[in-house]
Amino acid sequence: MGDRVQEILSWYGSDNAGTKTNIARMLRSGKLAGTGKLVILPVDQGFEHGPARSFAPNAPGYNPHYHFQLAIDAGCNAYAAPLGFLEAGAGHFAGQIPLILKLNNHDVLHDDKDPLPSVTGSVKDALRLGCSAVGFTVYPGSVHCNAMYEQLRAIAEEAKENGLAVVVWSYPRGSALSKEGETAIDVVAYAAHIAAQLGAHIIKVKLPTAHLEQAAAKKVYEATQIPIKTLAERVQHVVQSSFDGRRIVIFSGGAKSEDKNVFEEAKAIRDGGGFGSIIGRNSFQRPKAEAITFLHTIMDIYAGKIR
Amino acid sequence: MGDRVQEILSWYGSDNAGTKTNIARMLRSGKLAGTGKLVILPVDQGFEHGPARSFAPNAPGYNPHYHFQLAIDAGCNAYAAPLGFLEAGAGHFAGQIPLILKLNNHDVLHDDKDPLPSVTGSVKDALRLGCSAVGFTVYPGSVHCNAMYEQLRAIAEEAKENGLAVVVWSYPRGSALSKEGETAIDVVAYAAHIAAQLGAHIIKVKLPTAHLEQAAAKKVYEATQIPIKTLAERVQHVVQSSFDGRRIVIFSGGAKSEDKNVFEEAKAIRDGGGFGSIIGRNSFQRPKAEAITFLHTIMDIYAGKIR
Amino acid sequence: MGDRVQEILSWYGSDNAGTKTNIARMLRSGKLAGTGKLVILPVDQGFEHGPARSFAPNAPGYNPHYHFQLAIDAGCNAYAAPLGFLEAGAGHFAGQIPLILKLNNHDVLHDDKDPLPSVTGSVKDALRLGCSAVGFTVYPGSVHCNAMYEQLRAIAEEAKENGLAVVVWSYPRGSALSKEGETAIDVVAYAAHIAAQLGAHIIKVKLPTAHLEQAAAKKVYEATQIPIKTLAERVQHVVQSSFDGRRIVIFSGGAKSEDKNVFEEAKAIRDGGGFGSIIGRNSFQRPKAEAITFLHTIMDIYAGKIR
Amino acid sequence: MGDRVQEILSWYGSDNAGTKTNIARMLRSGKLAGTGKLVILPVDQGFEHGPARSFAPNAPGYNPHYHFQLAIDAGCNAYAAPLGFLEAGAGHFAGQIPLILKLNNHDVLHDDKDPLPSVTGSVKDALRLGCSAVGFTVYPGSVHCNAMYEQLRAIAEEAKENGLAVVVWSYPRGSALSKEGETAIDVVAYAAHIAAQLGAHIIKVKLPTAHLEQAAAKKVYEATQIPIKTLAERVQHVVQSSFDGRRIVIFSGGAKSEDKNVFEEAKAIRDGGGFGSIIGRNSFQRPKAEAITFLHTIMDIYAGKIR
Amino acid sequence: MGDRVQEILSWYGSDNAGTKTNIARMLRSGKLAGTGKLVILPVDQGFEHGPARSFAPNAPGYNPHYHFQLAIDAGCNAYAAPLGFLEAGAGHFAGQIPLILKLNNHDVLHDDKDPLPSVTGSVKDALRLGCSAVGFTVYPGSVHCNAMYEQLRAIAEEAKENGLAVVVWSYPRGSALSKEGETAIDVVAYAAHIAAQLGAHIIKVKLPTAHLEQAAAKKVYEATQIPIKTLAERVQHVVQSSFDGRRIVIFSGGAKSEDKNVFEEAKAIRDGGGFGSIIGRNSFQRPKAEAITFLHTIMDIYAGKIR
Repeated sequence: MGDRVQEILSWYGSDNAGTKTNIARMLRSGKLAGTGKLVILPVDQGFEHGPARSFAPNAPGYNPHYHFQLAIDAGCNAYAAPLGFLEAGAGHFAGQIPLILKLNNHDVLHDDKDPLPSVTGSVKDALRLGCSAVGFTVYPGSVHCNAMYEQLRAIAEEAKENGLAVVVWSYPRGSALSKEGETAIDVVAYAAHIAAQLGAHIIKVKLPTAHLEQAAAKKVYEATQIPIKTLAERVQHVVQSSFDGRRIVIFSGGAKSEDKNVFEEAKAIRDGGGFGSIIGRNSFQRPKAEAITFLHTIMDIYAGKIR
Repeated sequence: MGDRVQEILSWYGSDNAGTKTNIARMLRSGKLAGTGKLVILPVDQGFEHGPARSFAPNAPGYNPHYHFQLAIDAGCNAYAAPLGFLEAGAGHFAGQIPLILKLNNHDVLHDDKDPLPSVTGSVKDALRLGCSAVGFTVYPGSVHCNAMYEQLRAIAEEAKENGLAVVVWSYPRGSALSKEGETAIDVVAYAAHIAAQLGAHIIKVKLPTAHLEQAAAKKVYEATQIPIKTLAERVQHVVQSSFDGRRIVIFSGGAKSEDKNVFEEAKAIRDGGGFGSIIGRNSFQRPKAEAITFLHTIMDIYAGKIR
Repeated sequence: MGDRVQEILSWYGSDNAGTKTNIARMLRSGKLAGTGKLVILPVDQGFEHGPARSFAPNAPGYNPHYHFQLAIDAGCNAYAAPLGFLEAGAGHFAGQIPLILKLNNHDVLHDDKDPLPSVTGSVKDALRLGCSAVGFTVYPGSVHCNAMYEQLRAIAEEAKENGLAVVVWSYPRGSALSKEGETAIDVVAYAAHIAAQLGAHIIKVKLPTAHLEQAAAKKVYEATQIPIKTLAERVQHVVQSSFDGRRIVIFSGGAKSEDKNVFEEAKAIRDGGGFGSIIGRNSFQRPKAEAITFLHTIMDIYAGKIR
Repeated sequence: MGDRVQEILSWYGSDNAGTKTNIARMLRSGKLAGTGKLVILPVDQGFEHGPARSFAPNAPGYNPHYHFQLAIDAGCNAYAAPLGFLEAGAGHFAGQIPLILKLNNHDVLHDDKDPLPSVTGSVKDALRLGCSAVGFTVYPGSVHCNAMYEQLRAIAEEAKENGLAVVVWSYPRGSALSKEGETAIDVVAYAAHIAAQLGAHIIKVKLPTAHLEQAAAKKVYEATQIPIKTLAERVQHVVQSSFDGRRIVIFSGGAKSEDKNVFEEAKAIRDGGGFGSIIGRNSFQRPKAEAITFLHTIMDIYAGKIR
Repeated sequence: MGDRVQEILSWYGSDNAGTKTNIARMLRSGKLAGTGKLVILPVDQGFEHGPARSFAPNAPGYNPHYHFQLAIDAGCNAYAAPLGFLEAGAGHFAGQIPLILKLNNHDVLHDDKDPLPSVTGSVKDALRLGCSAVGFTVYPGSVHCNAMYEQLRAIAEEAKENGLAVVVWSYPRGSALSKEGETAIDVVAYAAHIAAQLGAHIIKVKLPTAHLEQAAAKKVYEATQIPIKTLAERVQHVVQSSFDGRRIVIFSGGAKSEDKNVFEEAKAIRDGGGFGSIIGRNSFQRPKAEAITFLHTIMDIYAGKIR
């Protein structure tokens, strides 16, 4: 099994031993350790949507310790959260699971068509909290994308110097894109490619639809007959767009939906060559035991135990 | 009694001994020492509203020494003020009461719907003045919230490195919120949560009303039947939203009002699990002896001597 | 006489010995040495209004040495000017009079309702030129007040670290104030208070009128019957608003006017507890001998030799 | 042959040995080694236009290793790409070909008439990846040109201190220029000159047309009868405008076009005294063997083997 | 002759030996060495107006070496140019003539009524290129004047620390000034004064007309009867406005014009007490031999050999 991890690490030939170690830590943790697949628990919804919308459906989630324990008990590869949530448990759970410090966040107390999240933590914070990686969101398509790309540039440089891995959430959004365009296959593949070019080790995107947003791209997709009809095909195209599979690409679960759908999506991610899922609300907004069963099913799909 | 302080300190497991020491200093000072409850005297109204509006009702308040002495004589846990006011007395009263240097301030000589306070002091100032903590105001909902969050991020990082505590005033305000929405329960709980995620050790918010401002939140509050009818329930929800009670949350007294009301509010804060009050104008805008009696009553409420 | 200087220095208990030494240097220089009163010569009008408007009325004033010599010969406590003017004489007149380097300046070759001066010198410049203090102008009420307050914050921190004193010109101005409001008593007192809160050692404001600008303030002035009818009363209120007299507040002479008026104003400043004057155009825009007689009369008023 | 390289290096008399070494490395690599001519492979189209538009026509191009190998096998002088693409292969292909790290990039998920690319890498990145040069794009004519020039200034200073060469892509664009004006001879010559004045060692511009955009320039071109009728004449004028030929100027191939045209252009570049080509899409969007033949033809044109 | 240089140096009493040495280097170079007069060759027009408009009239000027040699052969006191032009010859001509690195530049590929040049070089560049001074342009009257003044402040501080001289081009321009006002005597005198206050050692302005632009200034010019009728009188007023002649003020030649006019202007500059000329296009846009004769005539005027 270790061979797959070694193979993945070989793609990161420009990184120092520290960063490779931290990528390996995530790949060798939890139920999927060694498979090259990842299931990560992210909990930044309190900041992004507010505490009640996030935690009222399963009130123990107000407590930051809950999510550490859930990620550990479910055998996730890593747990990702903003500064406050990690500060509240990183000492208590030290060494039990790889941590990802989410370094920028956005709230919905004000509206903005072209969002620019606030930088809310630092690489130094990640180091003092014992994290394996920093996480950063960019919104390609936003008029503020320059600011985000340049913040990420500086953070990634500092993180790599300090032996951390860099996880980039790449979510197209902004006044130049239609709502449907935010998950269009051409746009999602482009967003994944940008994240890879910006130096991300791990890229997180939304699952793409078969919609084609940009006219110039559409012409090429049709002329070169890129297969994008099935979800697995689209996952494969996103993975291909991320340096032909030489970068780890995982997919987000999005809003809470029926388990059946989530499992189907996981199968498509697996079959398309995706590296796994990052699943927040579908995990922590239900009772813990139920959440663990749910996550184990997904992990079994990725491990190939469920076909 | 010390056990409660130890318990509270255990929530701050990512902080260094210096910061824990300074949190403990505030929790072990004054009449409420060791109870885990806090009553803090803040005097930044001279900057925020002008000297006459602040001090003419009780003219000795023009003198910065007055407030140090009032906080000491009343047995407050800490005294919070801007740079000039602290510089004018920190040497004279050295070691007599924990100090909080308010690092940003705003005046009303010009209007702005979406306020952005000026940064008026530094962590180095707090250190040279012997402070236990820095204080910082954020206005979630302001179009300038990014600037404030990022200023706070840098200040909090430097403060924590230097063993200081971080107190965040989190006051929703801005063009996206209705006037009523600024104290709506969903908004205040969200603002407290944001402060916690930004790494605050102590959070100060306004007492919330039962109003629900944001449609997406309202739906959840109603669906999950979060109890918000009484003030105590609302305090409890705010405390829950601040990492399930694992962060110190205190409430502001607001403009001068009838004592009876303030006492009722203190009881609700206590009964809802709040950690205390920060009381400015209701304290220093009346004769000193009267102010001390008033503050002692509130402290007795928190200590449980008055039910 | 030295006792009064010691008393004044005691108000600056948070400052290091270097800063106290430099405050003392100004208080112990010139004809008013030791009285606790100050008359300062400022010459930044060349930058602010242009050379001809400033110096044509008394052409020797084009020469930067002229003003050093005038300030020395008249027995002023200090001489304040921008970088160029000080560079042009600081070596030649080294040690003959305390110098204040004016660190920001504004010209009138372009209009702006909400002015933001340029920072034109540094604390390092002040140190290399042997200055006792830095001077900085803020315009409370300007939409740019944040920028000015934050520039001042950084400059004051650096100045204090390096043992310099900080002199703040606090001139309300900006689109939110009426022309009359710029010298309204409520506004001037507020501006003086803001300068004190920002950490100024010496505050310079304009002489206030009895006008009340802001509605919320007006209500309090009337309700608490703050005496503001005579100029001496208004000076007293400004001094009170500056930490109850625990900060040095001096008043500007403004445009050239009849000597009789200036002397009456000086008496009012003295009787209201003000600490002195800063007198530019009324001094250097007349022949030197005449200017010295004029300044000596004002000093005699402050010294109490003229009642 | 080495003499030509020595001659070129003599133009860079203000550069340190490190920078000269890196310029020499590019001039002494590949099939054109020692001729003083350059053919560079740039692959930033994935970022600039999206992955499918760039790589779908020749799918192996999704893999970052493909381009390293293509540049090596074709005998290019250097390979230029953004951070991610270089990180993905710099270790694997270490020392096989000089690398140019493209330090700013722009995507088309949002529109902007006056583009400002994001800075996406650093001089330190270039050093840790073993690059010989940094690349930077400026858009003279953009309202953001100040930002780009000043970013370049800082990057060039740091690059030169660290012994790297500086390659500047100078592409006129912005609301003040007509579409036709972007490649007008007066504008392209001006853009090349600006790059030279900004300290570029190697300048890349588009092939100019005979159009004259700016009225004041047109007058001079006509009065002094600058020959601009043939492409070779225009190339010569651009080279002359780049310090009379004392800076290396290369020309971009632009969008994919017929080979015949590209060869004609290469001949004109050669005959006009240009230093070579930078050819992206015309190379990597066709099968590798075909691309190598194509590039070899161009190199033979520059080497004078094909007239 | 050396006495005049010593006298001039005595005006710069706040500068270190390094800066004085570099001022002296310029005053002791070329045909006017020791006279206290200066003729400087500036060549930044390639950047400011484009290469063809600048160099097509005399094509050898495309070559950066040409201007070094011209300045040396003509016996100029110094040669001033942007980064690229100096880098291209500073090594080759090392020590043959004092150099001034022009640190900001502006091009005309885009329009702006209120120009803000780009900073295109650094003090460190000037040091590594062996320069005697840095040059910087400010546009008083521009809405961007704050930015320029503050850039200059930082550059001048660093230059002086490192023993360089500071040359300021002060050109009034911007939406608040009429076209005629840009060279009005009140405005030019004001601009020279601002440059002096900002710490310039050498000030360059345009020759002023008798126009009076600003109403408030006009009143004073008329009331105090400042003589401004002849060009010599106006030069004298500008010199007086520059610290009563205690700063070196030189005048620009402007666009190419008839030699006779230029010589008359030089006489007026001399007779008004000006310190010399900075002559670009009138020098390098004609054949070299002719240019040398032309410059020698001007130098002879300044040396008093031609009356």
